[in-house]
Parts: sequence; structure tokens; C-alpha cells
Amino acid sequence: MSRFWSPIVHSLTPYVAGEQPRIHGLIKLNTNENPYGPSPRTLAAIKAAVDDTLRLYPDPTGLALRQVIADSHGLSVDEVFVGNGSDEVLAHCFQALLNHDQPLLFPDISYSFYPTYCRLYGIDFRTIPLDAAMQVQVADYKGPCGAIILPNPNAPTGIALPLAEIETLLRDHPDQVVVIDEAYVDFGAESAIPLVKTYPNLLVIHTFSKSRSLAGLRVGFAVGQRPLIEAMERVKDSFNSYPLDRLALAGAVAAWTDQDWFETQRQRIIASRETLTVALQRLGFEVLPSAANFLFARHPDRAGKELAAALREKAILIRHFQKDRIGDFLRITVGTEAECARLVTALGEVLG
Amino acid sequence: MSRFWSPIVHSLTPYVAGEQPRIHGLIKLNTNENPYGPSPRTLAAIKAAVDDTLRLYPDPTGLALRQVIADSHGLSVDEVFVGNGSDEVLAHCFQALLNHDQPLLFPDISYSFYPTYCRLYGIDFRTIPLDAAMQVQVADYKGPCGAIILPNPNAPTGIALPLAEIETLLRDHPDQVVVIDEAYVDFGAESAIPLVKTYPNLLVIHTFSKSRSLAGLRVGFAVGQRPLIEAMERVKDSFNSYPLDRLALAGAVAAWTDQDWFETQRQRIIASRETLTVALQRLGFEVLPSAANFLFARHPDRAGKELAAALREKAILIRHFQKDRIGDFLRITVGTEAECARLVTALGEVLG
Repeated sequence: MSRFWSPIVHSLTPYVAGEQPRIHGLIKLNTNENPYGPSPRTLAAIKAAVDDTLRLYPDPTGLALRQVIADSHGLSVDEVFVGNGSDEVLAHCFQALLNHDQPLLFPDISYSFYPTYCRLYGIDFRTIPLDAAMQVQVADYKGPCGAIILPNPNAPTGIALPLAEIETLLRDHPDQVVVIDEAYVDFGAESAIPLVKTYPNLLVIHTFSKSRSLAGLRVGFAVGQRPLIEAMERVKDSFNSYPLDRLALAGAVAAWTDQDWFETQRQRIIASRETLTVALQRLGFEVLPSAANFLFARHPDRAGKELAAALREKAILIRHFQKDRIGDFLRITVGTEAECARLVTALGEVLG
Repeated sequence: MSRFWSPIVHSLTPYVAGEQPRIHGLIKLNTNENPYGPSPRTLAAIKAAVDDTLRLYPDPTGLALRQVIADSHGLSVDEVFVGNGSDEVLAHCFQALLNHDQPLLFPDISYSFYPTYCRLYGIDFRTIPLDAAMQVQVADYKGPCGAIILPNPNAPTGIALPLAEIETLLRDHPDQVVVIDEAYVDFGAESAIPLVKTYPNLLVIHTFSKSRSLAGLRVGFAVGQRPLIEAMERVKDSFNSYPLDRLALAGAVAAWTDQDWFETQRQRIIASRETLTVALQRLGFEVLPSAANFLFARHPDRAGKELAAALREKAILIRHFQKDRIGDFLRITVGTEAECARLVTALGEVLG
């Protein structure tokens, strides 16, 4: 507290990201990073951009990146917005599109950054409980609201919503923006991007941090019809002209166009997820059906906090949220085959 | 305009950055970039960071960078805040520290992003006219206000304020935050950073885009006492956990510690500025005394707009602001010796 603070600062509840510890030999399954590095072509493209031109500002509009994304989805470049990670894209989206007289709706169990953005921009919100199976029921979102935001697959549950349900939501709310946050969509859910042409109220947000293996480079994007993207651009150009640096732009273009690498790693992670699911079930865990690169699982006999602490002692980091309804769950990033095997062994030892 | 927009979007006036055209052979003196590239050590450090670890999130706190900055100024690491270019640092500063019941004050001729930030965050502001010599008079800032922000040297005039004047301002406003935006300070002004220990109301903002030759990498920072930095951190952690990517962090640490390169390029630009000043004066220009890496100059016989257009036809880009009081000035970035010489030749031809 300080007399120098703007009043808003007193009421913020900053998001707490998963730890990024520098412990050697640690198995890090706590922030849903990709266990496999970016493609050789991506690394080469970034290295090629490391030269004297770093003295110059990047393209403020990120045109080359927007172009490759637009092309692959049959969209216009003006229907694509890029930013410094999907967290920045989300932040601009909350400020530009989700602040209305009626409350914003999102699930009670969801990306925990959403209420933080609401406090930052003074957005009234109401959470809608997941059902007993931890699923989103779109019927629960009927009625007056200012806008809706949903991750699909949801985080931290990993459960995906079929596209038909998303479409119901879009039809039920023709005058409200519906944001689908598809950070994890490439690991097994259906993207809503093909619906963009039909629904002027749809904004879809993606990240390069998960399926594109570039969490360290900070690139995300949004697609939607022109009025929604224009609102995002107006906020962005009132905030920071150049959010994406030259190397991030070069790396993201290369990663986006290296389809083979993307496909191979993605399938490998999906296969590991299925193997890990079975192994955890054998240890007695209830594992929610995941369409993401992580599992959300609980053991009937052990508290989540206790299991998280025991794994940490064995130099394995997973994420645990001490919150209502999910306090007994562990959120486990799908690692390499070897990391998953070590996790299963460690859990076997802990459970005795 | 769209029914989907948050109300704030309608009232924004986005900042328009200087052009980043892709015209071959262009002499680009319009966005105050450094004419010399980053140091070989900086490029090598970035290249060394281009590897599989890009799959991992960066350090959300940017600790290594904050540490080298803190060390060189005898400050604690907790007194340093880093961000995605000084524009992002400024944006967080406006939201966290400059929104009060009384209006924010800044010069009428100043960085034109300031009023844009005010509109983004609903901050009431009042501009204080520069005097007839285009100088800031700190006595004009006396009286009630919410906070003050000043670039030093000012932009786009290039004129520096002596440190004693900054100190007067800090003493006149013990209960208000005074932000000194030192984007250009390394080219000849006195930094207010040594005053941070004495004045709890002082925040100083720097960029790596100018004297550190890294406009393409997007790194900026702020220093101040703990309560001010804490407010910035609270806003940042409510906006984007990881604003600085792994390569930007690696490059900035290397650039900061490569003092010899920094000193050599800086002195070279200062020398070019003095040569260019004399050459422009010989062509009849009035040139304001600059402590920055750009000159602000007008010709008694020719409109600024006309000169800017004539230079553009000769593939030389400078910046011209069609605004009250400064419509006849050109803002000319100090380029290499060869670029400056070509500019002088071109202006000689235009003036005939």
C-alpha cells in the first residue's frame, strides 16, 4: 500500500504462474510446456534473424506472421491479431471486448487468470459451475450476460467441448462476444476457427507456447471477424506499438509453416497422454478424459497437496491448486515417455 | 464501431508509430533507431540462447536482467522493473501510478503516446506549455496535480533538463509520483537514477531501443523505490506473466554488460549529431540544442510538411508531426556519418 498507487492497484489479485525453478535434474511437469523442442527449421530461422537489424524496430503489425496464419485458415490477414503470448492477447481481449453492463460469464473451474483480468479492467463477472463430471454445460450459460469466455479444452480439467456445443453457445448469444480460448486445442479438441466466417460474435485465441513448442518466445494470436479484431488493434496500439520482437516473429512464422514437425510432436504427446492415463488409473487415480497436453487426476486415498509435496521431494514438479472442488486434483503435464515413466514410478513409491 | 466493443474502445486514439517501410536503399531517420548494430557479444549471447529451451517459459521475473541493472546503479534487484520495451513499462506505469483524482501533468510538446495511455486508462491529464524556447520550466508545474511525467531529454525537441531542475520538481511534489522518461538520456543528459535513493516519489524509465541498439528486441526498464516497483509488478502480474522472452532477456543482459561497445557507439552518435547540427545550420535551419540521438529543426522558408515530402521522394525518411507549434519542424534521427552526409546533400538540393 502506498499513497503513490493508482486506486486500482489496491484491488488487484495478480495471477501466480507455475514455478520456473532452476533446479538441475528436475522433471518439470507443472506449466504444460511441450517436452520436445522447436523444430530445427524454427531454430535456424531465429538464428538467421540474429544480426544488425536488431537495431531496428520490428514490424508493428506482425504482418508476415498474420499472413501465414490467415492463409492456413482461409481468412483475411485483417481477421488475425498477434500478441506477446496468448496472455497478452487475452488481456487486450478482456479490455477491448469483455467489459459490458452485464457480467462476463466463465466456468468456476477454468484458467485462473480470467478473474485477474476482470479485476485489472473493472469487469463484472459471474462464474458458472461445471457439472458433477467437471464438464461445461452450455445450457447453464443461457440468459442475460455481457460476454462469455471458455477455454476449449478447459483448463485445468483438460475436458473438451464438442463443436456443436460451441455453436449452440454462439447462437444463444448473437449480441454477445463468445471467446474460445484454444491454448490446448491441438492435442485433441475441435477448433472453432472454421466458425469464424459464420459468427460475428466469435473470437478464437491460440498460443505458440504449447503445441508449437515456443513458450520461451511469447507468441499468441486471435482470429475473428473484422470488428472484433479492430477493437483488439485499437487497444494494442494504445498500449505498445511493437509487442512482438523480430526474433519472435521470425520463429513463429517458421514454426507455423513447419507442419510435419508440429504433427509428429503433437501425435507423440497424444500417445504419451494415453499411456500415462492408463498407468495412473492402474495406480488407482481417477483421471478426467483429457484432450490437452496435461492430465487432471485425483487419488481416492491421498490429498492433492500431500501428493504434490511428495513428488517435489523426488524432484518432480506438477501443479496443484488449493481451491474449492479441485484441491485433491493434480495437474500433470504430459512429458517425454521417460519423464512420464519416472513420474509413474515415483507415484508408485509414494502410494506404497 | 460495433455492439461487441467495450465502451472504452470507442474513445481511444491509438498512437501512430513512425513508419517501418520495406523499401530497399531507404535512409531511415524517422524512428530514432541506433545506426549501429548491437555488439558482437550481444549477438553471440542471443544465438547461444536459440536452442531447445525455447520450449520452456522464460523467467517471469527477469531476474538476471534486473540484477545486472541493479548492480550497475548500486540498487537492489527489487528496485528494478523490466518490460517488453519502455512502451509497455510506460503503459503499466500509467495504470499503476498515474491515475489519481487530480490531473496528470506533462508538457504540451512531448512523447505523443502519453495522451493515448491516458485515454486507455481513463486518466485525467493537463498539458503544460513549453516556453517560447521550447524548454520545460519546472515552475510551471507547481500547484495541485495527481502526478507528473516528463521525458528527459524531451522528445521530440531533444532538449535536456538539468538534474537540479528535476530535483526541484521532486521537492515541489513530495506526495506525487514524478516519472522521468529517460529513453534518450545516454546521448547527453544527466540521469535521475542517482536520485532514486533519496526520493520515494521518483520513477525513472529507460529503454534498450536507442543507446543499446536493440529496438528489435523490445526491452525497457524502470527503477524506483520498492512501493513504486511493487505497484508496477502487481499490474504486470495481472496482465502477462512473461512479457520478456528468453532471447530478449539473454540479449539485454549481454548488451547491458558490454560497456565498451555501448560507450564507443554512443560517442560516435554524439559526434555525428554535432557535425549534423552545424551542417543544418549552414543550410539555414534553426536547430534546437539536442541531448538526444535526433535533431529537431525548422527552416525559416519552408514548411515542415513540404520538406518531409521532398526528402521522401529522395528515399530519405524523417519524422514530421502535423501539430500546433511544431508543424514546421523536422525530427531527424542521427544516422551514420554517410547517412547524415546524404541527408545534408539532399536538403541542399531541395532548398536549391
